[in-house]
Amino acid sequence: MHPAIQYIQARRGDFAENLKGLLRIPSISTKPEHKADMARAAEWLVHRMQAIGLGHAEVLPTNGHPVVYADWLHAPGKPTVLIYGHYDVQPPEPLDLWTSGPFEPTVRDGKLYARGAVDDKGQVCMHLGALEAHLKTQGTLPINIKLLIEGEEEIGSPNLDSFIKQQLGRLAADLVVISDTAMIAKGWPGITVGLRGMVAFQIDMQGAKSDLHSGGFGGAVENPGFALAQLLARLKDAKGRITIPGFYDDVRRLSPSERRQLAKLPFREKAFLAGVGAPRLHGEEGFTTLERLWARPTLEVNGFLSGFTGTGSKTVLPSRAMAKVSMRLVPNQDPNKIARAFMQYVRRLAPKTVYTTITEISGRGAPWLVSPDDPALQALARAILKGFGKRPVYTRTGGTIPIVPTLAKLLKAPCLLMGIGLPDENAHAPNENLDLDNFHQGMLSAAYLHLELAGESA
Amino acid sequence: MHPAIQYIQARRGDFAENLKGLLRIPSISTKPEHKADMARAAEWLVHRMQAIGLGHAEVLPTNGHPVVYADWLHAPGKPTVLIYGHYDVQPPEPLDLWTSGPFEPTVRDGKLYARGAVDDKGQVCMHLGALEAHLKTQGTLPINIKLLIEGEEEIGSPNLDSFIKQQLGRLAADLVVISDTAMIAKGWPGITVGLRGMVAFQIDMQGAKSDLHSGGFGGAVENPGFALAQLLARLKDAKGRITIPGFYDDVRRLSPSERRQLAKLPFREKAFLAGVGAPRLHGEEGFTTLERLWARPTLEVNGFLSGFTGTGSKTVLPSRAMAKVSMRLVPNQDPNKIARAFMQYVRRLAPKTVYTTITEISGRGAPWLVSPDDPALQALARAILKGFGKRPVYTRTGGTIPIVPTLAKLLKAPCLLMGIGLPDENAHAPNENLDLDNFHQGMLSAAYLHLELAGESA
Repeated sequence: MHPAIQYIQARRGDFAENLKGLLRIPSISTKPEHKADMARAAEWLVHRMQAIGLGHAEVLPTNGHPVVYADWLHAPGKPTVLIYGHYDVQPPEPLDLWTSGPFEPTVRDGKLYARGAVDDKGQVCMHLGALEAHLKTQGTLPINIKLLIEGEEEIGSPNLDSFIKQQLGRLAADLVVISDTAMIAKGWPGITVGLRGMVAFQIDMQGAKSDLHSGGFGGAVENPGFALAQLLARLKDAKGRITIPGFYDDVRRLSPSERRQLAKLPFREKAFLAGVGAPRLHGEEGFTTLERLWARPTLEVNGFLSGFTGTGSKTVLPSRAMAKVSMRLVPNQDPNKIARAFMQYVRRLAPKTVYTTITEISGRGAPWLVSPDDPALQALARAILKGFGKRPVYTRTGGTIPIVPTLAKLLKAPCLLMGIGLPDENAHAPNENLDLDNFHQGMLSAAYLHLELAGESA
Repeated sequence: MHPAIQYIQARRGDFAENLKGLLRIPSISTKPEHKADMARAAEWLVHRMQAIGLGHAEVLPTNGHPVVYADWLHAPGKPTVLIYGHYDVQPPEPLDLWTSGPFEPTVRDGKLYARGAVDDKGQVCMHLGALEAHLKTQGTLPINIKLLIEGEEEIGSPNLDSFIKQQLGRLAADLVVISDTAMIAKGWPGITVGLRGMVAFQIDMQGAKSDLHSGGFGGAVENPGFALAQLLARLKDAKGRITIPGFYDDVRRLSPSERRQLAKLPFREKAFLAGVGAPRLHGEEGFTTLERLWARPTLEVNGFLSGFTGTGSKTVLPSRAMAKVSMRLVPNQDPNKIARAFMQYVRRLAPKTVYTTITEISGRGAPWLVSPDDPALQALARAILKGFGKRPVYTRTGGTIPIVPTLAKLLKAPCLLMGIGLPDENAHAPNENLDLDNFHQGMLSAAYLHLELAGESA
């Protein structure tokens, strides 16, 4: 057994313990009051990178939260891999639904619970563990490594494009490896070959200048809470299809063979539904659940607020209503075109009885798809087979990683999506967690990948 | 000039100063944490009633917040008048829209600003001032008086019916006077001869057992925020008509003569719109603003909450959504029938992809209408002419006072609605206020009413 692999096997518990340190830092990028925590999380990573022997690690400023960069470039003639991840997390609310505190990492039944456990701190630390294993046992790495760990993924990476453009020379690589996705089920390691894109907006409506008595004014003044509900309802038809003109124009249709492959995947609808806990599943007519999740675009209400929402009754006619609406896009939809179409359509639907404002609240993410014949993908497939003891399946994910299409385009390098999350690990929701078996086997796979890319066998 | 009238004229400022004491108590009946404030407000009233010489005043328990009762019954052969009001108030939120604190009464430009200033503490204290004027100047009242000041009006008076039924003997009266309404415009004192009724519900939808990642699950799991918006939108058609089956069956249509009378009232649509501050008015097609407010039923969204509502973006698929919906009813709609129809219809519209709960959150209030030929109404009209120096107009209000139809029915006595509020005084909204001229002239009118009912001229 390769010494790096032995090293990981022998220290399994230590890596999880170390990860807890990063999980304790509430690095919530969307909340301005957590700016200092963002800096603390970046510093934690730099210290960890230096401790494992990467030598060069630093915090680089952007116009928003900083980027953590590190490299080890002492393997001449070997390929250079850029590893991307993020240290920022989603807000933890609603707090009352967490069994243990979101920033008090706790292990229960082989799972590590904390905000960011799987998305994405655990997956970043999986890579750091694999690098540590090589460096501590050999004093060297099989390949050249660069690490780019950003702090704005959860808010749509608004400053990353310009950062990458400024640092193109420093970031140049033969291959990009990104771990921010999930496998389809435990025991089914996979490689993600497709992503959805995203655009996100906030719609604000203002009717009266202040809240009114619903008896004294109701019937003669528009109710923004009702008007906004009505507008949102009109964004989809009775079959669940989005009504924005041109929305589906560029959607790439699945071929019959692709549909057959999707149908073969070990996706158990019953278990998926049980994990979700809803009375039944629901989506666009004419598509299976996996097709709806991976190959069809969506429009979701992420938040809605109007009027009195406390306990009991308050017969108020609200003056304001607010909704957050995001759309997940699939190949070959263009986020810029969709954003324009959405804004035009909402402006057209908005009644003249209220003042309506539309604000884009997140960076735009393009959808992405890669060919399973790519040689780098084949190397990763071999590494996963060794790390997990199973041949990986090729899947997609419904989520968005704007950096994937961006890096592929700017660095002109293929991207590998090596995700070790699970679909029921509550990324973005209460009780987020990370399966520690997957964390361990993912770390083994990462160490094997370095060897595979160097042309070494282990 | 009658001594009681002289007394009121001489002490105009003192009555407003005294009222501030009651306005400082945050007696919010819908919030359990204000239970002690409710008791304090009731005690304040008992002390005030004793101080002006009513002799018998006490706090009577109910199954909810207590009732304040007082009487003076030393005018044998004269009619007995029961004065009804309420000491509870609406919640003050949103707090950031108040210019001065909701429970820090402040006079600006002849208006007294505080939650409850006009609804209804100011109007209760107007009656107490008139009684004080008679008692302090004559040592006696022209008629017999009973006062019933309840603490649950803003939550639909859930315990008042049973309280009145238990205390029928004690509350027996020849006439009921209620001051909890508004005049149509400053300088246009009026008597309210019609009220809308009300029913109010909360609809809760639960989809997944916890919030989900909108990328990982969006498209395959129902979004309760969207489903509830869709359900609410279906409660009205494109013309603003409520779609609940049978909703309009019992609505009494306005006669051509009634419509002509409404059109003659000094209602200025432009000023109404300016007060409201919305871009334009809005309502059911085919009706004027006053008709929409007074003679047509409504359905309003009073509150809506789902998902992430903070600053920025959170791409969550919410597990829950909640809306508060109330309906204002007009003669001859039956609140029980409408409540039943609403619940049946919402259950029918609710998709099977979420768990839906419908909860009634307020007592039911019947609509009410009185004939302008009533002799007691004529006495009040004469009193108002003297107090305000103007002949009153007969109006309706879009609001609901469930006690009016209840008292009329249980006590078998006519009700007089003597309201001195103004339409722009923000009852139920931030910056609620009371015009101090109206407070003063209303107090004069109340004192004159006692004399009119006693058959005395002044």
